[in-house]
Amino acid sequence: MSYSMGKNVYIAESAVIAEDTKIGNNVQIGENVIIKSGVVIRDNVIIGEECVIAENVYIDLGVIIRDNVTIGKNTFIGARCIIGEYLVEFIQERDKQKHKTVIGENSLLRSETIIYGENNFGHDLQTGHRVTIRENSRIGHNVRIGTLSDIQGNCDIGNYVNMHSNVHIGQKSVVKDYVWIFPYVVLTNDPNPPSEELLGVTVEEYAVIATGTVVLPGQVIKSDALVGAGAIVNKNVEEETVVVGNPIRKIGDVKNIKNKVTGEAVYPWRYHFDRGMPWKEVGIEQWESENKVQD
Amino acid sequence: MSYSMGKNVYIAESAVIAEDTKIGNNVQIGENVIIKSGVVIRDNVIIGEECVIAENVYIDLGVIIRDNVTIGKNTFIGARCIIGEYLVEFIQERDKQKHKTVIGENSLLRSETIIYGENNFGHDLQTGHRVTIRENSRIGHNVRIGTLSDIQGNCDIGNYVNMHSNVHIGQKSVVKDYVWIFPYVVLTNDPNPPSEELLGVTVEEYAVIATGTVVLPGQVIKSDALVGAGAIVNKNVEEETVVVGNPIRKIGDVKNIKNKVTGEAVYPWRYHFDRGMPWKEVGIEQWESENKVQD
Amino acid sequence: MSYSMGKNVYIAESAVIAEDTKIGNNVQIGENVIIKSGVVIRDNVIIGEECVIAENVYIDLGVIIRDNVTIGKNTFIGARCIIGEYLVEFIQERDKQKHKTVIGENSLLRSETIIYGENNFGHDLQTGHRVTIRENSRIGHNVRIGTLSDIQGNCDIGNYVNMHSNVHIGQKSVVKDYVWIFPYVVLTNDPNPPSEELLGVTVEEYAVIATGTVVLPGQVIKSDALVGAGAIVNKNVEEETVVVGNPIRKIGDVKNIKNKVTGEAVYPWRYHFDRGMPWKEVGIEQWESENKVQD
Repeated sequence: MSYSMGKNVYIAESAVIAEDTKIGNNVQIGENVIIKSGVVIRDNVIIGEECVIAENVYIDLGVIIRDNVTIGKNTFIGARCIIGEYLVEFIQERDKQKHKTVIGENSLLRSETIIYGENNFGHDLQTGHRVTIRENSRIGHNVRIGTLSDIQGNCDIGNYVNMHSNVHIGQKSVVKDYVWIFPYVVLTNDPNPPSEELLGVTVEEYAVIATGTVVLPGQVIKSDALVGAGAIVNKNVEEETVVVGNPIRKIGDVKNIKNKVTGEAVYPWRYHFDRGMPWKEVGIEQWESENKVQD
Repeated sequence: MSYSMGKNVYIAESAVIAEDTKIGNNVQIGENVIIKSGVVIRDNVIIGEECVIAENVYIDLGVIIRDNVTIGKNTFIGARCIIGEYLVEFIQERDKQKHKTVIGENSLLRSETIIYGENNFGHDLQTGHRVTIRENSRIGHNVRIGTLSDIQGNCDIGNYVNMHSNVHIGQKSVVKDYVWIFPYVVLTNDPNPPSEELLGVTVEEYAVIATGTVVLPGQVIKSDALVGAGAIVNKNVEEETVVVGNPIRKIGDVKNIKNKVTGEAVYPWRYHFDRGMPWKEVGIEQWESENKVQD
Repeated sequence: MSYSMGKNVYIAESAVIAEDTKIGNNVQIGENVIIKSGVVIRDNVIIGEECVIAENVYIDLGVIIRDNVTIGKNTFIGARCIIGEYLVEFIQERDKQKHKTVIGENSLLRSETIIYGENNFGHDLQTGHRVTIRENSRIGHNVRIGTLSDIQGNCDIGNYVNMHSNVHIGQKSVVKDYVWIFPYVVLTNDPNPPSEELLGVTVEEYAVIATGTVVLPGQVIKSDALVGAGAIVNKNVEEETVVVGNPIRKIGDVKNIKNKVTGEAVYPWRYHFDRGMPWKEVGIEQWESENKVQD
């Protein structure tokens, strides 16, 4: 073995490790793991069985990767993340984690993120610290999920979705592309709590939900809508409308909101903001004309 | 010693370990620890002094168990939990953790739960990830506490209480049996913040508090009441009443709420829901007739 | 080397370690680290390069200290804290953490606190569990930050500020001395979300913000004001006024609030409360006369 290796490293014989891998102290690598070129694995990392770590992945101190996890190339996994976390069935079986977990390439998982097994995420995912993502969360590409956010699983999140810190996405939520969700927003799902009937929230493309809003079960926030901070959303919100309050009331059309300093219109936001968005290079008009059917 | 043991394991001579225990790598076990039959201790676990680990407990990767901790049989302790966490006095003394911590049998603590010393919990406790439970929290049996919830200590929580994600239970709160508390609910306690006078909230049997509600100090939510999402509870809530708003106003009787699809009544919820409840086998009517004085 | 040392300890030759240091098992200490007299370093701790650990610091199990970190004397660092966490540039460079991090003396960081590099904090800082403090957070002395709070960086926090659990301080916030912020309060900053224009909140001396309040971008809460629980602060709050509601309305003067039991006035709170405050010894009147210009 020609790769660089620390002390007290235990590698299963069936593991296949590229020559230029750097492995720290106290690392454990399980059966049938494949580690590709340029990977850095720092101290105290534990990698289970049947995992694939693609090129140039960086695995920081104390990360736990359970069984059946694939990490896409160039991804950075911050200290003490747990990837492929056990589903509840493991508690009974106490055997292996059988569900697959796939993290797309170019992702950045900040320290202490927990991602369950039975998940398959697109490329360019970013998480803040201590994010929890339960099983069966369908998440697209270029999604950002802020510190302490809690994705409860069985939900469907599109591409280029931005969730800020401490967002709670209940099961059966549907969040479409280019949605912004700000801190302490909760998407609920139980119309008659407690009940067995879960009715998810739907948030359509380009909608914005400001800080501290609670969306009640089954409500639909339509495209380009703006929900003001602290709203209790107890009915559907129509396209391009602004709602506020507990319970919500409509206060206008998003097109009438002006920047208080410049006096310019600010919504729909895609005509005024492009950081991290796919139209950054070409401009929104050209991008829209090229993408009649959005990705 | 006939038990299976990994590398770099340090076990105090006074520890007593059953023959069929499985111990991983880099494990440390302190003075006078007793480990019973069928226990699994995975890599990087640290167990302090004077602990008892009962039959068939599973201790996942990197768990820290401080001193004077007893874990009931069949309990599962997820990765990196800290059980018996130091009280503030330790900061000065920097010696041992002297307070006892008892986790009941058949419990499931999900990864990164922190439970302080000076706690004694009933059986069948379930925690989500990154739950924090401070000292002197009296918690009954069959209690579920969701991800990121923060139980501040000096509170009194009954049996079959369900707390969802990110619930904050202030000191001196009293939560009776069969209560449901949904995400981002806060039970406060300081009537004139900041002050030295703490006045806890009381939530009576079968009450339901929906997402994002703040209950002000000293308020009582009476049995079978329903508090709507985002409410600011600034006065007592009477039995079987529905309140909503900031501040709350009464909008009706729980018995008048119908399921929007089926048209059937849904409250009091115990007549319509039994998952995880003690009346699941016999039905609520028979169970009530057998349990005039509830457990 | 005469200090006490566990097994599997790796210390760089250039490190300078005082004779009475106690070092546990599986500890790693990097290049040019200086460890002073009376320090305790427990098992599984990793200390990077160029760090200084002053007298009598206690570093609990599994702490990660990155590069260029200075810890002031008598400070206690709870289990699994990460101090000097990587800024986002590290993700590209994957080299060393170059930004300095200074933790003042007599601080108490509870377990799993994450503090970024590029921070310089005053003495007597206290954090709860799982606090996250991003880079460029200017924090004074005698500050308390509760469990799960999230300080987003580029903010300015004074002395003797008390933040309870689960507080979110957005970038560009200014929080002056002696402010109290209760659980689930969010200070926001984006007037037209999403935008590139950040407009921080200002909270002036002695102001109190009760549980679950959201303060909208750019608003100023003036000195001695009291914001009631669950408020949505959409305009400035004047000195010594009480506001509540969504959106806020003024309901009176803080001087008219009486303790419901004793009938005594309770605000401005500094005349009625002194725990942890600098006027505790001499009384508020003498302290004020001696401190015309507050520290």
